[in-house]
Amino acid sequence: MYRAPLKDLQFVIHELLDESAVQACPAFADYSPELADAILGEAAKFAENVLDPLYKSADREGARWTPEGVVTPQGFKAAYKQFTEGGWSGLRAPQDHGGQGAPSFIGTAVEELWSASNLSFKLCPMLTQSAVEALEHFGTERQKALFLTRMASGEWTGTMNLTEPQAGSDLGAVRTRAVVEGDHYRLFGQKIFITYGEHDLAPNIIHLVLARVDGAPPGVKGISMFIVPKILANDDGSLGERNDVQCISIEHKLGIHGSPTCVMAYGQRQGATAYLVGEAGRGLEYMFVMMNAARLSVGLEGYAIADRAYQQAAEWARTRVQGKPPGVAPPAPIIHHPDVKRMLLAMRSQVEALRAVALYAAFQLDLGGKHPDEAVRIAAKARGELLIPVVKACSTEAGIELASLGVQVHGGMGFIEETGAAQPYRDVRITTIYEGTTGIQANDFIGRKIARDRGAALTALLVDARRELNAADANDRAVQTSRQAALEALDVLEHAARHVLGAYAQAPERALAVAVPLLRLAGHALGGWMLAKSAAIAAGKLADGATDTDFLRGKLGAARFYATHVLPQVAALSRVVIDGDDSVLETDATIV
Amino acid sequence: MYRAPLKDLQFVIHELLDESAVQACPAFADYSPELADAILGEAAKFAENVLDPLYKSADREGARWTPEGVVTPQGFKAAYKQFTEGGWSGLRAPQDHGGQGAPSFIGTAVEELWSASNLSFKLCPMLTQSAVEALEHFGTERQKALFLTRMASGEWTGTMNLTEPQAGSDLGAVRTRAVVEGDHYRLFGQKIFITYGEHDLAPNIIHLVLARVDGAPPGVKGISMFIVPKILANDDGSLGERNDVQCISIEHKLGIHGSPTCVMAYGQRQGATAYLVGEAGRGLEYMFVMMNAARLSVGLEGYAIADRAYQQAAEWARTRVQGKPPGVAPPAPIIHHPDVKRMLLAMRSQVEALRAVALYAAFQLDLGGKHPDEAVRIAAKARGELLIPVVKACSTEAGIELASLGVQVHGGMGFIEETGAAQPYRDVRITTIYEGTTGIQANDFIGRKIARDRGAALTALLVDARRELNAADANDRAVQTSRQAALEALDVLEHAARHVLGAYAQAPERALAVAVPLLRLAGHALGGWMLAKSAAIAAGKLADGATDTDFLRGKLGAARFYATHVLPQVAALSRVVIDGDDSVLETDATIV
Repeated sequence: MYRAPLKDLQFVIHELLDESAVQACPAFADYSPELADAILGEAAKFAENVLDPLYKSADREGARWTPEGVVTPQGFKAAYKQFTEGGWSGLRAPQDHGGQGAPSFIGTAVEELWSASNLSFKLCPMLTQSAVEALEHFGTERQKALFLTRMASGEWTGTMNLTEPQAGSDLGAVRTRAVVEGDHYRLFGQKIFITYGEHDLAPNIIHLVLARVDGAPPGVKGISMFIVPKILANDDGSLGERNDVQCISIEHKLGIHGSPTCVMAYGQRQGATAYLVGEAGRGLEYMFVMMNAARLSVGLEGYAIADRAYQQAAEWARTRVQGKPPGVAPPAPIIHHPDVKRMLLAMRSQVEALRAVALYAAFQLDLGGKHPDEAVRIAAKARGELLIPVVKACSTEAGIELASLGVQVHGGMGFIEETGAAQPYRDVRITTIYEGTTGIQANDFIGRKIARDRGAALTALLVDARRELNAADANDRAVQTSRQAALEALDVLEHAARHVLGAYAQAPERALAVAVPLLRLAGHALGGWMLAKSAAIAAGKLADGATDTDFLRGKLGAARFYATHVLPQVAALSRVVIDGDDSVLETDATIV
Repeated sequence: MYRAPLKDLQFVIHELLDESAVQACPAFADYSPELADAILGEAAKFAENVLDPLYKSADREGARWTPEGVVTPQGFKAAYKQFTEGGWSGLRAPQDHGGQGAPSFIGTAVEELWSASNLSFKLCPMLTQSAVEALEHFGTERQKALFLTRMASGEWTGTMNLTEPQAGSDLGAVRTRAVVEGDHYRLFGQKIFITYGEHDLAPNIIHLVLARVDGAPPGVKGISMFIVPKILANDDGSLGERNDVQCISIEHKLGIHGSPTCVMAYGQRQGATAYLVGEAGRGLEYMFVMMNAARLSVGLEGYAIADRAYQQAAEWARTRVQGKPPGVAPPAPIIHHPDVKRMLLAMRSQVEALRAVALYAAFQLDLGGKHPDEAVRIAAKARGELLIPVVKACSTEAGIELASLGVQVHGGMGFIEETGAAQPYRDVRITTIYEGTTGIQANDFIGRKIARDRGAALTALLVDARRELNAADANDRAVQTSRQAALEALDVLEHAARHVLGAYAQAPERALAVAVPLLRLAGHALGGWMLAKSAAIAAGKLADGATDTDFLRGKLGAARFYATHVLPQVAALSRVVIDGDDSVLETDATIV
């Protein structure tokens, strides 16, 4: 049974983020801490009462392909209806197209609850939101009026169609063809791995498809983005005839069984009617704009699932009586075994660190998009974009490790599917892959986010982080320990990043050979900063007589644990970053 | 398609182990390097041609419970027949009971091939072998003649019945009752997690069951071991009537679907006829004797599955064309991406390190059991037992991480079950749990293997390891790098172990809070020793004009990679060991 981590979300939002900066943005003039709490409270109810009850059954049942269409697991249709009626589809969508225009950090907080309570379900609105963002930025007014508004309301859903069998991460290799026909195009090709490419939750599905206009140059510059509705729509939104697009099969996957992953065939007959988005040849650029939000949204899935796994493992450890823990009279629950406590603290502390970094990143993107002061906007945008690969890669890699720990806490029962401990371990495994693998995030981090501005955004972040840490009052031992460890970790990060910057300038492959270790180093170090900052705040509140002592003492415990069990990895990763390139590059691929 | 790693097994056996010491044991007088190669060659054929073809189909089909008994996946019956006809069941069993009496390190090498090609299948002979060992040590002559010989031949199979719903790892809590009745007993109780507790591969199943004789003292001292045949046997081995033991259901598991995990009911009617093994009250002691071998056998499963995952990932990376790797003309396979190479090297180098440590441990147990010189025997036994928890925990924990990397190398295709990359990730997840969780191995390592002899066995091992490393010629860069890193890692291990020894003496829970980090530290450091030693040998052979250059250069590459990418973790884990106990112990269980 999943419980939304409202206290921690509120702690991060109200204590770690500077909400006044959001309120300074005209676009978020309605924002208030009270509104945030109200949204989170409602989302928590929806996650706990509507989505969580479908978590296991959707996994068992799975999505099902039929000649008439894909059938989603029992309960999804009713849940989706409630979801749209509750206005959740358009939470982040622009207000002038019927959305609620909530800031991205609120969207991130809410999406954690959807991801933890039912990742399979969450993917449908998430892909829709990505499509909304693409149309918001690049669609014509007519496209916005017809498609965006209906996707923002959840009446129709959206998809992203990138991958083809021969073009996985390499979108330059896309072959789907677009042939011009008057004011529209006809599309021919096959796309794979299309999440919710076909389903029964909504009457229409708007596919955003990457394809190549006949005669376009080869490679990425020849790729355009198209709107392909499942059912052709009239200007008033009424549905016309079926378009020439079919889901020809769905995948049999390790996890997220409730979410249909479709093979889509475009143009098996006369060609799928398609409408160009923006300018021809700029499809990949558009895709990357919406990819940023999608990457953050996948990143949060990592800690969301880990939190679910943590909650379940903690519940198991508190009730399962077994063995004779040292210093406790038997019969005692296994949580008193030091190693079980160690595993739970590893889960909790990392979940909280990753959550804080992700919300901070989303917050920066909000300021980067909407703050009235241009200097603030530019700096925040660079910082948010710097953090996207950190959140995407580190939250998901940790998510896998932590979901695996969740299984471990259960012992033999963890391997039995009925217990439910295995499902997070299966579901989370996709998160380091989709929306760009960890390797691709690491390349992005080094190439676009560090090398391009010669480390300026990273340096600025480190300056702020150190200033915050040094400003904190540190009488408490957990505060001292976590602050000291975080400051050391930030120094190591700076040193390692400088080294990689030098290597990248010399020969990019030197940097790429240790890009993932650097990225994980960054994730650990920034998490350490967030937890150290949290510990200082928690200690201050306790000193001021706050009544929520268990939560605040838990924060201190998590920060201290993270400092002594997780942050030591930073120095190890730094050694890998600095010494590890030769051993990869000088070993021939033939003998690897 | 799995290929047995014959070259590396032969390298470890012929180059890293001192085969002359085995030949000095009268029990292994028949042993020769040629015989070892012949056994491995035949085992490789069986693994590749008989077991591997059933790997995926057994996973898809699974074992099936029916009221008439459990049905194993298609092909298992024929494979088991071939297995027993080939004499594989009794490979390690004593020669005077029809076995082949092969040394344990040969058994370990062979079992790797069974585990990698078909873990679900392997568990049946493995459990039988464990039961054989228990009866070999503690059975009466009559029990040996009737049961052991038929299990050694594979005619009947064996099981271990320990766990009950309320007694997972805590066997002192076992409740199954034994009531004396003349020269035998009647058993009443339920056992869970019984691997191959019921199946259709052999006409009889011999259960070794832990139970409590009525009136026995509470706790572990009241536990006895019993033989409970599925079908009562006459002295000539002919089968009589069905015993009162039933498989009432099998589990629905995350992995190893082909292996039935049974809930066994004893005594639903008049009580299951049972024969006491050895003396009453010593059941747990007996169980631990056979547990040692079983733990080694589960440990090898970790790197066996990781090797399978590695082979599949390498094959994928060599054939999948995608992207534009730096310094290679496109279209190029993804193995040329530095990060993909990094992942494959992480897999290969750790598999080779873990394999070498496991074979070394088994070799020590062989000498410890059979060497004619008592001093050699005592030292080797202590060293082998010291290494058992290292092999069990570190191979399996790494197995999970490496199988996950195998999925990652496949990208999106890794999440699709048809690719087969997900199966190792599912199957391997049990290995850190069964036969004692990683936490239990860590307690054993610290409590029984280090504290009990005040670190003597560990110190002796470190002395030998350092001597070997310092003796090696080191002109080659990979040899220098790996030797230096291994020597540093051994120093760190010594320091960390000393610290824990002190903490354990002071308060055991201080040590137990960081026992798993210490154990993993030990695994990494000892793996570094083995790979550095391997690198020196490989460099020597290359200098001497050996023709197998790809394999030997691969060894050098693996050693160098391990030194720069894996061994840095040793220092990090040492910091956790030294600084990490307080943060676990001082955080209340209530707020974890």
